[in-house]
Amino acid sequence: MHDKILRVNMTDLSTVVEPVPAAWIGHGGRGLTSTIVAAEVPPTCDPLGPRNKLVFAPGLLSGTTAANSGRLSAGAKSPLTGTIKESNAGGTSAQAFARMGIKALILEGMPEGDTWYGLHLGRDGVSIKEERELIGLGNFAVVKALEKRLAKKVGVIAIGPAGELRMNLANISVKDPDGKLRSHGRGGLGAVMGSKRIKFIAVDAEGAPPVELADPEKFKAAADVFASALSAHPVSGQVLPTYGTGVLVNVMNEAGGLPTRNFKYGQFEAHESISGERLRETMIARGRKTRRGCHSGCIVQCSKTFTDEEGNYITSGFEYPTIWGFGANCCIEDLNAIARLDGLMDDIGCDSIETAVTFAVAMEAGVLSFGDGKRAIEILDVDVREGTPLGRVLGGGAALAGKAYGLTRVPVVKGQGIPAYDPRSVKGIGVTYCTSTMGADHTAGYSVAMNILRVGGCVDPLEKEGQVELSRNLQIATAAVDSTGLCLFIAFPALDLPECLPAVVDMIDARFGICLEIEDVVSLGKYVLKTEHDFNTRAGFTRAHDRLPEFFEYEPLPPHGAVWDFTPEELDAFWDF
Amino acid sequence: MHDKILRVNMTDLSTVVEPVPAAWIGHGGRGLTSTIVAAEVPPTCDPLGPRNKLVFAPGLLSGTTAANSGRLSAGAKSPLTGTIKESNAGGTSAQAFARMGIKALILEGMPEGDTWYGLHLGRDGVSIKEERELIGLGNFAVVKALEKRLAKKVGVIAIGPAGELRMNLANISVKDPDGKLRSHGRGGLGAVMGSKRIKFIAVDAEGAPPVELADPEKFKAAADVFASALSAHPVSGQVLPTYGTGVLVNVMNEAGGLPTRNFKYGQFEAHESISGERLRETMIARGRKTRRGCHSGCIVQCSKTFTDEEGNYITSGFEYPTIWGFGANCCIEDLNAIARLDGLMDDIGCDSIETAVTFAVAMEAGVLSFGDGKRAIEILDVDVREGTPLGRVLGGGAALAGKAYGLTRVPVVKGQGIPAYDPRSVKGIGVTYCTSTMGADHTAGYSVAMNILRVGGCVDPLEKEGQVELSRNLQIATAAVDSTGLCLFIAFPALDLPECLPAVVDMIDARFGICLEIEDVVSLGKYVLKTEHDFNTRAGFTRAHDRLPEFFEYEPLPPHGAVWDFTPEELDAFWDF
Repeated sequence: MHDKILRVNMTDLSTVVEPVPAAWIGHGGRGLTSTIVAAEVPPTCDPLGPRNKLVFAPGLLSGTTAANSGRLSAGAKSPLTGTIKESNAGGTSAQAFARMGIKALILEGMPEGDTWYGLHLGRDGVSIKEERELIGLGNFAVVKALEKRLAKKVGVIAIGPAGELRMNLANISVKDPDGKLRSHGRGGLGAVMGSKRIKFIAVDAEGAPPVELADPEKFKAAADVFASALSAHPVSGQVLPTYGTGVLVNVMNEAGGLPTRNFKYGQFEAHESISGERLRETMIARGRKTRRGCHSGCIVQCSKTFTDEEGNYITSGFEYPTIWGFGANCCIEDLNAIARLDGLMDDIGCDSIETAVTFAVAMEAGVLSFGDGKRAIEILDVDVREGTPLGRVLGGGAALAGKAYGLTRVPVVKGQGIPAYDPRSVKGIGVTYCTSTMGADHTAGYSVAMNILRVGGCVDPLEKEGQVELSRNLQIATAAVDSTGLCLFIAFPALDLPECLPAVVDMIDARFGICLEIEDVVSLGKYVLKTEHDFNTRAGFTRAHDRLPEFFEYEPLPPHGAVWDFTPEELDAFWDF
Repeated sequence: MHDKILRVNMTDLSTVVEPVPAAWIGHGGRGLTSTIVAAEVPPTCDPLGPRNKLVFAPGLLSGTTAANSGRLSAGAKSPLTGTIKESNAGGTSAQAFARMGIKALILEGMPEGDTWYGLHLGRDGVSIKEERELIGLGNFAVVKALEKRLAKKVGVIAIGPAGELRMNLANISVKDPDGKLRSHGRGGLGAVMGSKRIKFIAVDAEGAPPVELADPEKFKAAADVFASALSAHPVSGQVLPTYGTGVLVNVMNEAGGLPTRNFKYGQFEAHESISGERLRETMIARGRKTRRGCHSGCIVQCSKTFTDEEGNYITSGFEYPTIWGFGANCCIEDLNAIARLDGLMDDIGCDSIETAVTFAVAMEAGVLSFGDGKRAIEILDVDVREGTPLGRVLGGGAALAGKAYGLTRVPVVKGQGIPAYDPRSVKGIGVTYCTSTMGADHTAGYSVAMNILRVGGCVDPLEKEGQVELSRNLQIATAAVDSTGLCLFIAFPALDLPECLPAVVDMIDARFGICLEIEDVVSLGKYVLKTEHDFNTRAGFTRAHDRLPEFFEYEPLPPHGAVWDFTPEELDAFWDF
């Protein structure tokens, strides 16, 4: 079966199946979505207008038996940042796309009028149907209804009320193997899907053959090495499976880089009460299993489930950034309240980092008090869900809310909220925030690994030396990993265990019958970054946008008294490659 | 008496009197404020942070007997657009500044804490005092209270609630000769003043000597020629004094360029009911005088007063952009309601264009209905004045409100609302909107003169030919006029009557004892534009920002079916000078 491109035009509700252009054949995941967006979307277009396109693509290894290869990539011009945007998520659809030979799904145009639509993707292609019943519903109800309407195993890619309301903090949500939710986070891609009036994409790969491998034996050998490396590394093999990403709460607090009270302090007094250790104890006490994966084939199993005292599901995929964001940064000390907020965000389809950063900004503005979890739940569940005026202010994200309230202490880069590591005392991640092609984003180049976790070496987090090179190397590597469909956490073994990265290259070679060198992976990463950066330049971004908000320069962060002290020239050197 | 610079540091509440640097001596008004902002404000700074500066300067001819020379210039980095911003207004302070030898007043820094301050400017310098009594009050109450507290004749520069709340649509308001209000409009300069926690600047020039003239006789002769030209031209001598700027309602409707229902149509069915002619009839029927000036020495007297049926004051300075904005663009047909909105905006300190454009966007979003003047009054008087969540969305301006509601039909350039002339059917003004250094602004280069009014020649409004050159020449000339302290309406005689511009040059020569050529005026205008453009470039603006929103390209405007069809290359040629 030849791979194909599915193109859906929402202006005239037409669909077409196209062969894969030669220039796209070698690409997958982020490499492919960014290539398509850069080639077909006018960089100065309105992100919520008919000229933007929303592209989905599985990774190069998706659909194979490679561990942790089930990430689906989504790309578009971001309404939050105005830059190009790629976001990948677990769930059940990446493998389905790959098995059906769907190299990419391109959604373009925009219908007139108020009608909503659902897309149905299967082996026969894609069809567009009017949708009424599910409009206004949260993601959990949408998944349940589609399982009932179509099939229990149907894959679901959907938007919640936030996406319908075209809010900047809207995610695209995906059904995970347990029928719960994962998210294409950050950048407001849910608003792009909402602007095209698509409530959901149902994915049915029933009967599709397995992905073809050019060299099955070589693939299996490499996949075994790769899986062993993932299990062998202490972070991906022990720490993350045991505690989940929440383990970072105490680590970052100890390092003095846990942003607290809207980035006022680097430590949170009540850190123990929201720690990964407390999360694990609580779940053990409530009799829950603590490990699960976000997609089938995941062996890291970092996605934690959280229940109430009676064992009722509250949330899963309950990650450090969320716990930090509503915990330390909003000063909410109760893990139960934070878990409820996380579950609500899954249902409404809100990005948890952007939402939490925005709530802290709202607390700074006096809209609600720091620490008031009850009021935060109310505002999220009523105002944001329904799009009241307050919900609209917050739904616009931290930058918009900060402007609406005339604040200066607004932690954003290129309009996107700064996540869970303070750039003053973890300077490598600050370089990533500044230079990422998608606004402040820790996953773009996770310098925390070397600055704090001492994975892959050690660079002093409080000194400027070496940080620009560190962030550059990590961003290049990440752009390549994001093209494979592999989970970013493979970076831990890849950085420390020499057999890991060659095994990944071998798997790609064996999948496609090609012969890559490690250097080709680096070239791929550079190509992806430069393609994205070029899009941004054409969209009007300059080096003047590769900067942190100025308050980081004149507000020293306790306990280290650190300030952000990179010169423009030092930051601009990032792009010298 | 030597001219001086007054510098007020709001961080440590210190003030200093400085000599005028050599490079600033030849400048006044916009030329001086833009020079100072470009020299002293870091272009990437937070407009509401301590690194921005707010600069006031009288024009080169302010304080003299030259007709219409009483415009005060204010400049800063704009929180609305992120660009450099200059805005000039009538009122009573420009002449006072000039007579006291205050070449410029520079407000810098930002206090910590919640205390508000009032500045007192007099012949002895400037003092800073804590202010409690007037906080939260509207501008009318502030003027009254300061007249009572200080002196009937005191000049007042103040912010209303909108400025205190640091809203993007906040103006700086100035007391006019009747104790009513004029505004430094557009760009949110009121929010900058609010960020520095200055509620008002009281200006007391009591006992200051007249401005010294190098050649009083030459000055008087030139001033007479200039005043005669103003009176002789049909627009400044007859049309504006008789009808005010509201005369443009019927003119623009006839031309099919009166943006209606949030820029959906080019004509408004109920145009007669909001016309300048109807305004005049109404005021004659209500027994009011119809002519007044915004500053002493004004002989155009376009500033109309509007009363209710009992003769009670509702508003003055009731201009075409406001009448258009809440009239045609919000479809409010009742001039009385529009006048009430205008009076409220004076009191709250809101920019009337930005506010009206924002309300039309809110109507598009369904927040209120098109045509609902009653609800508009309520929202303005309660929500915007008090800064409720809805008030915060609208207070952020049209771009912010459009983003909050996820709309594509948001008429802004560089974040500033597009004013009262549709760029599709008045293409010359569209070029000005795109290329102005301060976002969409008709006053930056009023191509309407040649496109529609046939002053200074005639360029077909529906054709692209000649529009870029037209806008360029007008923007250069306007930057020079804005430096003189003269009202922009001198452009009408200057464009048509050969004796007018030489008389202006002669007045400047006679004031300072210098010898300029007409070519020097052109050079001054070019210098001002390039200084501002360079600031914007350093702030991160590129040619990609010199564009209209894309809906103007694909939505034809009735009745002409005109679309915006300039190529990027055609627009970029603007800066080839």
